Amino acid sequence: MKRRKFIGAGSLAALPLITGFTSQARGRMPKASEDYGINLVLDGYFLEPKQYIQKLGEIEAESGITGDFYSTGGVISQLEAEFCEVTGKESAIYMPSGTMANELALRVLCSEKTKAIVHGDSHIYRDEGDSAQAIHNKRLVPINPGKHFFTAEELESTIGALQKGEAFYDGVGALSIENPVRRHHGKIVDLQEIKKVTQYAKTNGIRTHLDGARIHLASAYSGVPVRDYCALFDTVYISLYKYLGAAGGAILAGDQETIGQMAHMMKILGGTVFRSWTHAAVARHYLHGLDERLAEMVERSNALISQLKELDEFKIQTVPDGTNVVFLSSDKINMETFAAAINDTHGIWMNYPDKNEIQIHFNETILLRSNEQLIEAFKGAAQSAR
Amino acid sequence: MKRRKFIGAGSLAALPLITGFTSQARGRMPKASEDYGINLVLDGYFLEPKQYIQKLGEIEAESGITGDFYSTGGVISQLEAEFCEVTGKESAIYMPSGTMANELALRVLCSEKTKAIVHGDSHIYRDEGDSAQAIHNKRLVPINPGKHFFTAEELESTIGALQKGEAFYDGVGALSIENPVRRHHGKIVDLQEIKKVTQYAKTNGIRTHLDGARIHLASAYSGVPVRDYCALFDTVYISLYKYLGAAGGAILAGDQETIGQMAHMMKILGGTVFRSWTHAAVARHYLHGLDERLAEMVERSNALISQLKELDEFKIQTVPDGTNVVFLSSDKINMETFAAAINDTHGIWMNYPDKNEIQIHFNETILLRSNEQLIEAFKGAAQSAR
Amino acid sequence: MKRRKFIGAGSLAALPLITGFTSQARGRMPKASEDYGINLVLDGYFLEPKQYIQKLGEIEAESGITGDFYSTGGVISQLEAEFCEVTGKESAIYMPSGTMANELALRVLCSEKTKAIVHGDSHIYRDEGDSAQAIHNKRLVPINPGKHFFTAEELESTIGALQKGEAFYDGVGALSIENPVRRHHGKIVDLQEIKKVTQYAKTNGIRTHLDGARIHLASAYSGVPVRDYCALFDTVYISLYKYLGAAGGAILAGDQETIGQMAHMMKILGGTVFRSWTHAAVARHYLHGLDERLAEMVERSNALISQLKELDEFKIQTVPDGTNVVFLSSDKINMETFAAAINDTHGIWMNYPDKNEIQIHFNETILLRSNEQLIEAFKGAAQSAR
Amino acid sequence: MKRRKFIGAGSLAALPLITGFTSQARGRMPKASEDYGINLVLDGYFLEPKQYIQKLGEIEAESGITGDFYSTGGVISQLEAEFCEVTGKESAIYMPSGTMANELALRVLCSEKTKAIVHGDSHIYRDEGDSAQAIHNKRLVPINPGKHFFTAEELESTIGALQKGEAFYDGVGALSIENPVRRHHGKIVDLQEIKKVTQYAKTNGIRTHLDGARIHLASAYSGVPVRDYCALFDTVYISLYKYLGAAGGAILAGDQETIGQMAHMMKILGGTVFRSWTHAAVARHYLHGLDERLAEMVERSNALISQLKELDEFKIQTVPDGTNVVFLSSDKINMETFAAAINDTHGIWMNYPDKNEIQIHFNETILLRSNEQLIEAFKGAAQSAR
Repeated sequence: MKRRKFIGAGSLAALPLITGFTSQARGRMPKASEDYGINLVLDGYFLEPKQYIQKLGEIEAESGITGDFYSTGGVISQLEAEFCEVTGKESAIYMPSGTMANELALRVLCSEKTKAIVHGDSHIYRDEGDSAQAIHNKRLVPINPGKHFFTAEELESTIGALQKGEAFYDGVGALSIENPVRRHHGKIVDLQEIKKVTQYAKTNGIRTHLDGARIHLASAYSGVPVRDYCALFDTVYISLYKYLGAAGGAILAGDQETIGQMAHMMKILGGTVFRSWTHAAVARHYLHGLDERLAEMVERSNALISQLKELDEFKIQTVPDGTNVVFLSSDKINMETFAAAINDTHGIWMNYPDKNEIQIHFNETILLRSNEQLIEAFKGAAQSAR
Repeated sequence: MKRRKFIGAGSLAALPLITGFTSQARGRMPKASEDYGINLVLDGYFLEPKQYIQKLGEIEAESGITGDFYSTGGVISQLEAEFCEVTGKESAIYMPSGTMANELALRVLCSEKTKAIVHGDSHIYRDEGDSAQAIHNKRLVPINPGKHFFTAEELESTIGALQKGEAFYDGVGALSIENPVRRHHGKIVDLQEIKKVTQYAKTNGIRTHLDGARIHLASAYSGVPVRDYCALFDTVYISLYKYLGAAGGAILAGDQETIGQMAHMMKILGGTVFRSWTHAAVARHYLHGLDERLAEMVERSNALISQLKELDEFKIQTVPDGTNVVFLSSDKINMETFAAAINDTHGIWMNYPDKNEIQIHFNETILLRSNEQLIEAFKGAAQSAR
Repeated sequence: MKRRKFIGAGSLAALPLITGFTSQARGRMPKASEDYGINLVLDGYFLEPKQYIQKLGEIEAESGITGDFYSTGGVISQLEAEFCEVTGKESAIYMPSGTMANELALRVLCSEKTKAIVHGDSHIYRDEGDSAQAIHNKRLVPINPGKHFFTAEELESTIGALQKGEAFYDGVGALSIENPVRRHHGKIVDLQEIKKVTQYAKTNGIRTHLDGARIHLASAYSGVPVRDYCALFDTVYISLYKYLGAAGGAILAGDQETIGQMAHMMKILGGTVFRSWTHAAVARHYLHGLDERLAEMVERSNALISQLKELDEFKIQTVPDGTNVVFLSSDKINMETFAAAINDTHGIWMNYPDKNEIQIHFNETILLRSNEQLIEAFKGAAQSAR
Repeated sequence: MKRRKFIGAGSLAALPLITGFTSQARGRMPKASEDYGINLVLDGYFLEPKQYIQKLGEIEAESGITGDFYSTGGVISQLEAEFCEVTGKESAIYMPSGTMANELALRVLCSEKTKAIVHGDSHIYRDEGDSAQAIHNKRLVPINPGKHFFTAEELESTIGALQKGEAFYDGVGALSIENPVRRHHGKIVDLQEIKKVTQYAKTNGIRTHLDGARIHLASAYSGVPVRDYCALFDTVYISLYKYLGAAGGAILAGDQETIGQMAHMMKILGGTVFRSWTHAAVARHYLHGLDERLAEMVERSNALISQLKELDEFKIQTVPDGTNVVFLSSDKINMETFAAAINDTHGIWMNYPDKNEIQIHFNETILLRSNEQLIEAFKGAAQSAR
């Protein structure tokens, strides 16, 4: 059987760098298939152009797509309105990237203040190329790299240390929490900790931002509604391409005064794209019913994990406080052979193993087959990798 | 017959503001049609979502579309390579917007210098929301608002006045020329003037940028190849959505050292979109054969203008040094009624008249019908507007 | 008699550049003298180091000088308090330069807005090296270069043109008026015009700054108290070295909230000098009684002008709406010889003539002699220049 | 006996904040005295206005002072030339503050790169109010807070971690080393470590800055000539008011191309003071013979420490790798009473004790008396504090 290219060759090389993943991310190219393959590498559907065009066609046929104009109006406005519902915020705006959403949130929330507190392993600190400093004139103060969150006490002590330890201290304007935390295998920040941190912030005049690129995932695993997370923050960013299938885009939601400043900032950054309905229409499509599908995905993947644990061939390791990431290893079979086989024969796309261990990301593509079919695929590929 | 919405209602209101056009731009909504309508309002095809999806499907079916990854690889790389050919430049990069392309060009070309000279009615001066000053720390020095270009002598005298008239003068880093000039009804800047200005710039250590959002249009009317225009400048921006039909995007081309700095700058501005193949594939499609189609469009529209001039009903006024803009008026018929009729009955989309005069933008959509058909449509609509 | 160097040789070359004056500014070096010479070149006393040290000693002996610490406390605080009185403002802060005072005023008054309106021939537009754009991310919009002020109507029409003519218009944050206008031979902006402009600004949410580097001079000639000028503006800058004799420094005054943001901004610009009492003590000394001395200077210089007009040798031209600048020419004598003679023999420092015409700046140094003595000096030097 | 105010009351409160010192810094006010008192609190002479004016007078009388003009020419140029000698650099420029010198050095050395590596307890990281981020668009990456320097290995591993751990890594533009380190009680960074770090930087295209505010002090204790330290760096800042007695100012030295960019940057930051000779003349005065006086100070203070160690009353603790800071405590006497007594009766200014321990800063003011006199003073004050 032939493999086909899933991601362009040039992009494959860039993947680890861009996503911050280790060599595991140099995923096998998934098997050619008329249907969507199962994708255990990314956060959700990663539609090929052909599939994406077909999906756009289905959406258009079913309910029509009204185009936007300079990223306002039409399906963009519909999507923004729906995200107001999702987040419980007054206002929401489409942006071309999560980096723009995160950085503009911090910039506007900080206003004249120069310091923003962030988690030391957060996307905003490690994956946005010093945008905060170089473009937005803000200093990011990182807390707790190595752990997956910071507590209110750690926040207070960090601020105390700045106040005492720095001459010309000018106050902290904003803080950001990422949840779940990508660089910590998708761990969830505990709701009670978030409440304490945001309460401390509110009391001390510090505005708050939720980097909720994957907040629905946190919600699916913790049972805390997305709105409940969002209610604790002034602004929240949610990605349109992690598990919403869009080719790109982001939503930033918050109160009207804050979000009202964004269109102009986005324009002068050069982020106002002529039309963005090709992203928004797909995101909107997948947004409908998302919570239900993710709930089912969690249930099914948990069942699948239990079944895999009973198999002789595999060891499966879950992540404490984690979400959709598990580690599959074996002392009986060669995991690289296994990954190749399950991709080629069964259309299940997996990361390459690192030290004979594969990092699996569950997402709603597993709903495309029954757990029985999936277990059979795992067994079959394992058989051929002995 | 029923009209259908062409642009979302919200967007229609925004159109004049965004494009800088006067009330003329509040164009009639074009007639519903299975086929593409003729569009005499914008620069080229302005595909509805349904049409756009269909076009994407045709492109994919014909030659396949390879997806990009964070706006590199796949069809993005193919498009960039083709624009290197088109412009004769070493390197080209896809960007989400023309504003980002223009502003980053000036920023990088200026390097440490703070002054950039621009035309006083250019997009970069009047339609980019003070991005140069507010984001990129550059001062724009405008020349010659009211006229459609500046000469080398005017450039020299402007620089001389700055040198003499300003304490702490630190030199001019870059200049930009827009060609054709949108705010002057698409007038072309004369090649000889461009040569003198860019020669003066080169001699004086000033780097040069061409805002060639519609450079192919200038080329089609002036007969000067796009490459010849581009050869005179360090960098050139070309729009993907003016006459290339894409839903968005821009190309910035130049030497490798300059363009090599752009990917990082684009990232930290928040302009690196996850995937941009939905834009690039369509732009690439329309790029092929563009010069030939525009040449035919020029020929046909000139013939059409001649034929219209012979009609009793209309007066037609062309623009000296102009390109695709003409003004259609009448002292016999009501032009608003005419515009409604030609849209509703004949599927030809026109601007609303201003003082009984309609600003027409010719573009390649006229090639969808013969001139005879078009003349018949004009006559028929005029008849019903008497 | 020997001349001695007044300004270091290197500085002399820089003078025209820095002050924006023409070749006239390459003033003759004043005559060596135990006493202060009469200085008709600058705005007031320009004490040599020896004289300055002596003056500091006198001030210290008379009333003591309390040192400051990082430009707060001691004589700095005393000076700031006195400038609150002078300007009628709640708060005042010492800064190292007028450029810092002007630029920080605009930055803070504009807040998030990017546009500040300035006079096209003002110091802030032409003599601060693009600081507003390059450091403070603001766009300066100049009005009326060539004239010495702009009216409320011109302001309104400028704003209207921006609103209509620019896409993505984001409002004007602040405006600045310079008074008197150095680049227009010290012309005064009429109080009624200032009232209309500032009233329009207030009504339209635009905050206002007075570049009053030489506001006491305007006051002395117009009879409008300094406080009355200041009352019309949110902030006002007054120079400490134009006619207050200090070796440097500036005062920025305004409401407490605005001025309260300045110390931190000054610090991070690197403008917080360890101690500044050497400037503040002298400025404070000359501030006491300034209005009275300037009033006498005006009276005496007007009398002097009348007397000079009666002399056969000279033509004297005053400036309409002007302050302390007059032009002295002659068709009988060589003005360069005259300037040399009056300097060498009479200790009166004058600009070099430009086309046999000398630009004279009256200031309080003329009070060092009686008008009779001065007329004798003019006559004597003229005699030797025949 | 009466005490007199040394520093204005307002300033005293600000001292700990500004200098970063603990409560120890709230030094006793030194005894009134015709002569200079001994100052064991700061880095050198801290002349009162009266003393400072007298010193200026002596300098002027002895060799004349040529005034500068906008901080160029005259004694400023003389001082800059002498600092070229001192540092072995091509070019040197006077600036109003160390913060401006440090920040502009990093800005210009980094050029387009956004990251600058600094020591985690350095002045540039903790005492300059986020200037690097807020004004100069640079990100400071701190190494090794808690220790007094970083090694080449730590530098390499920090850079490696950035390269591996950050997506969109864009390289480090510059690094800064402070020597000696004020926040580590004046510890010296070892020459061999500096050599390794700067060698690594050079090999890796990272430019280097020495925050040598007190570099002469390092030199006096380490025996490494100032020029030898400076030779390892691209730029070096030296304070004019730490031990050079000036009321303010800083020198930044380096190669001509780098320093050549500073005057313009200083101007647009608002740092070009009208005249700065009142600072430069005093700094120049104390610069002559500085190395010799500091050498003698080191010898004498070491002898004094030995003598103090033999006294029963005191415990004296030196700082490993330290310079001029020692800690004086006692289990026999009350150190606060002692500090009051030695100030009031003997004219020796000391910090307040913290937990019965006084932080002493030796400097050249100890040369005003013999060691015998000083020991007598210590003994006498101890006697009265029993």
